[in-house]
Amino acid sequence: MEEKELDIERLWRGWLRSPFHSFLHMDLEAFDREAGTATFNIPFKEAYARTAGEEGIHGGVLASIIDIAADFALAVAMNRMGFPTIDLRIDYLRMASNGDMTAKARTIKKGRTIGVAEVEVYDAKGRLCAVGRGAYATAAG
Amino acid sequence: MEEKELDIERLWRGWLRSPFHSFLHMDLEAFDREAGTATFNIPFKEAYARTAGEEGIHGGVLASIIDIAADFALAVAMNRMGFPTIDLRIDYLRMASNGDMTAKARTIKKGRTIGVAEVEVYDAKGRLCAVGRGAYATAAG
Amino acid sequence: MEEKELDIERLWRGWLRSPFHSFLHMDLEAFDREAGTATFNIPFKEAYARTAGEEGIHGGVLASIIDIAADFALAVAMNRMGFPTIDLRIDYLRMASNGDMTAKARTIKKGRTIGVAEVEVYDAKGRLCAVGRGAYATAAG
Amino acid sequence: MEEKELDIERLWRGWLRSPFHSFLHMDLEAFDREAGTATFNIPFKEAYARTAGEEGIHGGVLASIIDIAADFALAVAMNRMGFPTIDLRIDYLRMASNGDMTAKARTIKKGRTIGVAEVEVYDAKGRLCAVGRGAYATAAG
Repeated sequence: MEEKELDIERLWRGWLRSPFHSFLHMDLEAFDREAGTATFNIPFKEAYARTAGEEGIHGGVLASIIDIAADFALAVAMNRMGFPTIDLRIDYLRMASNGDMTAKARTIKKGRTIGVAEVEVYDAKGRLCAVGRGAYATAAG
Repeated sequence: MEEKELDIERLWRGWLRSPFHSFLHMDLEAFDREAGTATFNIPFKEAYARTAGEEGIHGGVLASIIDIAADFALAVAMNRMGFPTIDLRIDYLRMASNGDMTAKARTIKKGRTIGVAEVEVYDAKGRLCAVGRGAYATAAG
Repeated sequence: MEEKELDIERLWRGWLRSPFHSFLHMDLEAFDREAGTATFNIPFKEAYARTAGEEGIHGGVLASIIDIAADFALAVAMNRMGFPTIDLRIDYLRMASNGDMTAKARTIKKGRTIGVAEVEVYDAKGRLCAVGRGAYATAAG
Repeated sequence: MEEKELDIERLWRGWLRSPFHSFLHMDLEAFDREAGTATFNIPFKEAYARTAGEEGIHGGVLASIIDIAADFALAVAMNRMGFPTIDLRIDYLRMASNGDMTAKARTIKKGRTIGVAEVEVYDAKGRLCAVGRGAYATAAG
C-alpha cells in the first residue's frame, strides 16, 4: 500500500495552532522531503529577551526553537504528524542578538522506533548562535 | 576579603524582570546556599500547552524551566548573579499534565570556570516528567 | 503469562564475555530489581590512564563505564538481556584519580520503547568524578 | 607577541603515548588549522566488539573516539596542547560493523574559556554510525 503524501504546509499550519506557538511563532520557509530538512524564520518579540533593555535572546527560547524545528524536520522526512521528544541537547555558541532568527533543521536518522534530527539557529546578523540535537520516538507518532 | 552574601529573594525578583519571565513565570519557593539547591512553583498557563484542548505541556517550556532553575541553583550555590549557559540536556520521561509544576534544582559542580546543575520537573500530579542538566560558564558571571 | 526472572548474576557473567569487557572489566557488586539499580566495582588498570606517569583516568573509560552500567541497570529493572544505546551524555565533574572506581546506576524510566538510566562514577578516594545519562531502545532488546 | 605554531603531527604522537591510546589506537590522517578539523583512521581490533563472534563495535569505543577526536580538533584549531572535557554527548545512529573506522572532527566554537567540537564516526562500510559533540575547558589547557 502506498502511503499518501502529507501536505507539509498544511501540517505546519496545524502545528501553529499549538497554544505554545501563539507565544513562539515560527514561519516555515522551506522544506525537503528527501533530505528531511526544514527551515524556519522566527520573527523577534521583546518577550524573547533574557534581560530587559539588553541584547540577548533567552536560552529557553533557543531550546524551544530547536525542539520544534527538529521534530518537524523528522515529520517531513517520515511523512508523519510529529513525534514525542525523547531527549534534547543544546550547545549555546554565542549570544543571539535581538532580531529575527533562522532555524535550519536536518534529519540524521529516521528509524522505526527512533528518529534523530539536528538544528542550527542563526541570529539576525547571520551568526550561528546555538546548535542542538533531539531524539524522537517515531514508533509513537 | 569576605564576600557579602547576596539577598537571594531579591536576586530572584531581579530575574523575574526578564522579559521571558513575563511569559514563563516561576515562583521561588525555597533555596539552600550550602546545598546549592532551589525549588520553584510554576503556575499553569494555557500558553504552555502543546496542543489546543489537550493535556500536555510543551517540551520547550520544560526545557526553559530546567535552564532557568539550574542557572539559579548555581547562582545560589556560588553567591553570584547568574551565568551564561554552555549547554543543556533534557530527558523527557512522561507527558506533563496541565497544571502547576514544581522544579527542584541542585548544584553538582561549582568550579571556577564551569558549574553544573541538575533539575527535576514534576507535574501537578506529582509525577517526575523531565530531568535535565546544564553546564554554565562560571568565569563569565 | 508470567515472565520468568532472569538470573541477574548469570546475565552479568554473559556480559563479561564481551570482548570489550576483556579490556574494561567491571565487577557487579549489587543490584535491586525493584529499584532498577546496579552497583559495580572497576579495578584499576594502567591502560585507563590519560597520560603516562600521571594521575587521571581517561574520559573515554568513564563514558564506557557509564554506558555499560546504565544499560545493565535497565536490564535489571526490566528483566531483559540488554538494550541498544540511543544516546549517551556525560558530565565530567573532576579528574578521577588512579585506582579502583565505583559506578552506581539507577533506572529513571522503563518504557515500552524507551528506557533511561543514570550513573554516578566515584574514584578510589570516594569523590564523584562523572555523572551521565543514557537513553536505550527497550523495544529492541 | 606572535604565538609559535605547534607541530600538529608531533603533538598527535605525544597523545599516542597516552596509556589509553595503547588500547584505542587512532591514526591522524589529516588536519586543517584554519577550519579546526582533524580526520582519523581507527584500525579494527577484536577487543572493540560488543559481543564475541558478532558484528558490532561497543558504544564505549565510539564514545571514546568522539571524545579524543573532538579534543584534538580543538587543539588544532587553537594551537594548544589539549583541553579537559566538560561534557560529551553521543547519538548512536546504527551499529558500527567490525572493521576500520573513520572519525571526522570539526571545531564549532573556540572561545577563551569554552570550546565545542563535533565528530562523525563512519564504519568500514562508509556508513555514519555515531555523531557526538563535546564541550572543553579551553581556559585550562
